[in-house]
Amino acid sequence: MENTTLSFRYQLEKETPRLGPGGITRGASLEEFPASVGIAGVSMRLQPGGMRELHWHANAAEWAYVITGSARTTIIHPDGNTYIDNFGPGDVWYFPKGYGHSIQATGNTECHFILIFDNGNFSEDHTFSVTDFIASTPPQVVAQNLGITLAEVAQLPKKEAYFALGVNPDERTTIAQPRSVPQLTSMHRYPLESQQPRIVPGGGTQRVVTVNEFPISTTMAGSIIELQPGAMREMHWHPNADEWQYYITGQAEMTVFLAEATAVTENFNAGDVGYVPMGAGHYIKNTGTDVCRILIGFNNGHYEAIDLSQWLAGNPKDVLETNFGIGDQLADKLPKSKLFAVPANQARS
Amino acid sequence: MENTTLSFRYQLEKETPRLGPGGITRGASLEEFPASVGIAGVSMRLQPGGMRELHWHANAAEWAYVITGSARTTIIHPDGNTYIDNFGPGDVWYFPKGYGHSIQATGNTECHFILIFDNGNFSEDHTFSVTDFIASTPPQVVAQNLGITLAEVAQLPKKEAYFALGVNPDERTTIAQPRSVPQLTSMHRYPLESQQPRIVPGGGTQRVVTVNEFPISTTMAGSIIELQPGAMREMHWHPNADEWQYYITGQAEMTVFLAEATAVTENFNAGDVGYVPMGAGHYIKNTGTDVCRILIGFNNGHYEAIDLSQWLAGNPKDVLETNFGIGDQLADKLPKSKLFAVPANQARS
Amino acid sequence: MENTTLSFRYQLEKETPRLGPGGITRGASLEEFPASVGIAGVSMRLQPGGMRELHWHANAAEWAYVITGSARTTIIHPDGNTYIDNFGPGDVWYFPKGYGHSIQATGNTECHFILIFDNGNFSEDHTFSVTDFIASTPPQVVAQNLGITLAEVAQLPKKEAYFALGVNPDERTTIAQPRSVPQLTSMHRYPLESQQPRIVPGGGTQRVVTVNEFPISTTMAGSIIELQPGAMREMHWHPNADEWQYYITGQAEMTVFLAEATAVTENFNAGDVGYVPMGAGHYIKNTGTDVCRILIGFNNGHYEAIDLSQWLAGNPKDVLETNFGIGDQLADKLPKSKLFAVPANQARS
Repeated sequence: MENTTLSFRYQLEKETPRLGPGGITRGASLEEFPASVGIAGVSMRLQPGGMRELHWHANAAEWAYVITGSARTTIIHPDGNTYIDNFGPGDVWYFPKGYGHSIQATGNTECHFILIFDNGNFSEDHTFSVTDFIASTPPQVVAQNLGITLAEVAQLPKKEAYFALGVNPDERTTIAQPRSVPQLTSMHRYPLESQQPRIVPGGGTQRVVTVNEFPISTTMAGSIIELQPGAMREMHWHPNADEWQYYITGQAEMTVFLAEATAVTENFNAGDVGYVPMGAGHYIKNTGTDVCRILIGFNNGHYEAIDLSQWLAGNPKDVLETNFGIGDQLADKLPKSKLFAVPANQARS
Repeated sequence: MENTTLSFRYQLEKETPRLGPGGITRGASLEEFPASVGIAGVSMRLQPGGMRELHWHANAAEWAYVITGSARTTIIHPDGNTYIDNFGPGDVWYFPKGYGHSIQATGNTECHFILIFDNGNFSEDHTFSVTDFIASTPPQVVAQNLGITLAEVAQLPKKEAYFALGVNPDERTTIAQPRSVPQLTSMHRYPLESQQPRIVPGGGTQRVVTVNEFPISTTMAGSIIELQPGAMREMHWHPNADEWQYYITGQAEMTVFLAEATAVTENFNAGDVGYVPMGAGHYIKNTGTDVCRILIGFNNGHYEAIDLSQWLAGNPKDVLETNFGIGDQLADKLPKSKLFAVPANQARS
Repeated sequence: MENTTLSFRYQLEKETPRLGPGGITRGASLEEFPASVGIAGVSMRLQPGGMRELHWHANAAEWAYVITGSARTTIIHPDGNTYIDNFGPGDVWYFPKGYGHSIQATGNTECHFILIFDNGNFSEDHTFSVTDFIASTPPQVVAQNLGITLAEVAQLPKKEAYFALGVNPDERTTIAQPRSVPQLTSMHRYPLESQQPRIVPGGGTQRVVTVNEFPISTTMAGSIIELQPGAMREMHWHPNADEWQYYITGQAEMTVFLAEATAVTENFNAGDVGYVPMGAGHYIKNTGTDVCRILIGFNNGHYEAIDLSQWLAGNPKDVLETNFGIGDQLADKLPKSKLFAVPANQARS
């Protein structure tokens, strides 16, 4: 952590994307964003009917948040069961490491979602697509395995499809068939946006989903934070997880404190990614004139944070006086309870 | 995984063995077999009365399968209890990391067994033998510890024994004393061969032992697969474990698919070892005229596999049509259920 | 482990200390003591009223033992609760990774304690002090966060305080207020010295605290061993943990056995640190004329050890005869039960 030139910002949406029929994707893993040791992420957009083909990730679980549009996913578990789930804006999904899955946009507009992986070393090298698997296997083996002729094997893609543009699922397609009992949640879906948020008047809101609310997400948790103009998510740290951020709207300033008098202050705009190592102190301050909305992912199913205000508030005053070398008067002005988010008008000069 | 020259085959039984009184051993760890990052293995043969001396492994648990002959083992647990167990062909043992144990052939013929360790970096450097421990300790300390004279210490081996040839245990030796209640299983023994296998007519059989059937084996699972001539264990992957194979009889072809259009196809004969990294796609096809029998070990107490046929069968037909760019007719021919093992006559041309 | 020049001794108390108002500290992590891969340690002394300021460790839990004097600590949990605990000689504390805490000497004499961390890579780089956090954050952010003016922010320390000398806590300070119900134990405190020890007449004593007696210490265990002059903690190893030692009084000899005929024998004096890798064989022999008292920490919440005497005692005699190539007579003299600590007069010549 001695390297003060290390950046905790990556301008993901300025990256040249990978394009394909029906889809477009931009990714940030260790290679592009050296600070992000523990978590990688992807911003993906599917056109109506566009599909991210059947695939699996060998070394990471996938946690996702839908920003706009709608999608349907299929996923197979090792017990042999396949599940189909529907997602809209504000929904979260979680797919365990190595489980085969597909994603297809189902609406009339583009579906934009953010994927977060609990391994900074996640990359395409560790992503296995079904067409790549079949194209990399001797044709006679594929024929025997699928019970088809070599001529039919020749009709399958000769290389990885990655994206595939198909019929926009409607009532005529199997995938679109409604479930008999509509449910807000499923084993793989948690509607984060439907959650009643923690609200700090003038400051902001926070919605958090952990393994407690969403049992399948054993290795990751996530949150959506909204900050009012000038407000800040106060100085804090996470004892148990790295933090990966995607700035959805607005602009912000963040300092990442790395101990030994080392800190990095950077500005973030919509489409940027931020990263905070486990245990590193940080705050996020809305420096714009609109609400700043941030998606945050953690590589731990449980959410833990320690806020500076609450830490100081919990210590006896004489400890604070000795620690800071201050008198009774200033010690009395320090926070008496947890703030979490601090409104702009709290600032004095 | 970019290195397409990587080999997933190691010809273990062609290795120059380590010889000793009563025993012979060949090992494959990272040094000899660079692909085997997560699991190491050993093929060991003990003559009647031959003993692999009291020892422990500092960095790995030991999972074993007896191919021929019989052996007795002793093992001490940290709670101070010592256990003696008897093993025959088709039996599995499991010794937790760091527990002291010995192995001695008890029958009238050679005992051949395969040891699998849940650490590719396993090696002799991490194997501690009792004679080496004593010979490496100042003699006066040994004398004080064992309550014997320095002259008696001098009678103990001056260096690691490793193998020792002793009296073939019989009714006159303590180790051979029958247990009062004969049991098929013990804390350390699971008779895998006695298990009713999964059977695919014309295809093959599979026997699997996991922590569910064999509670002490918390970090490893294993299986025995038999494939009929021309049959194949279908295309699949393991989401939660690396795979280490020992080809007991027959010959086979395996492709290891590493994503990004990278795959390695190799041929295996009896005595060869194969390795498949966690999440990598693969199949095993019997290319010989006899039954191919394979011992497989995993570095996870739980067994998980996802088979291509079941994955495709679980997805709606329109997903497959879009994914593969194929029509209704070909989509209808794809597998409708899990195959697991595919008989030779399933192949078409 | 091929490097026979590796030393398992570090003369911690001969290190040039870090000094500050009210405190003095010496540390051993990987940088100073290359052998100590899994555990680091610190010897710290606080003068009356001296405080190790509010701080947290990003990558390690902290296990401590008080040698002399008394101290009070404050600790915040992620659930927001703060706890104040009192410690005296022979007491142990445990602070989970990333939890903010402070330590202040409370008595009329210096308080000397040993800190042990479950990460050899622990260092000041991974230690975050509250003053450093505040000094590294833009002043206007601090002002907004704490609800104070920029002029008041300027009164806070401009750099890390680390140590701070304050009023010796007495009945006028909040921190000194007695708890309504005095308790021997608390969530963070275990009075190891109050424990009835394992006693081997003429040999020594052992007190052990694990996660079983001290539930919060999930990642570490510890013990205090006393050896009589000439006595030894017998040859043994720990299957599940590395071992970190601090020699409190006396002098001793230890051999660390690393397999493959590699062993390192060194002498230890009061103030020295010793280290034994997981699984490595070792003994500790009191080579002085006074009691040798050793603090030992393990990086596992559970304590496991296998002693040579018990291992041999549990094996059938014919196994020992074959293993060591010895006759019935010598085999009969080997230990018949666990010794643990061997008195001096057990030695023969």
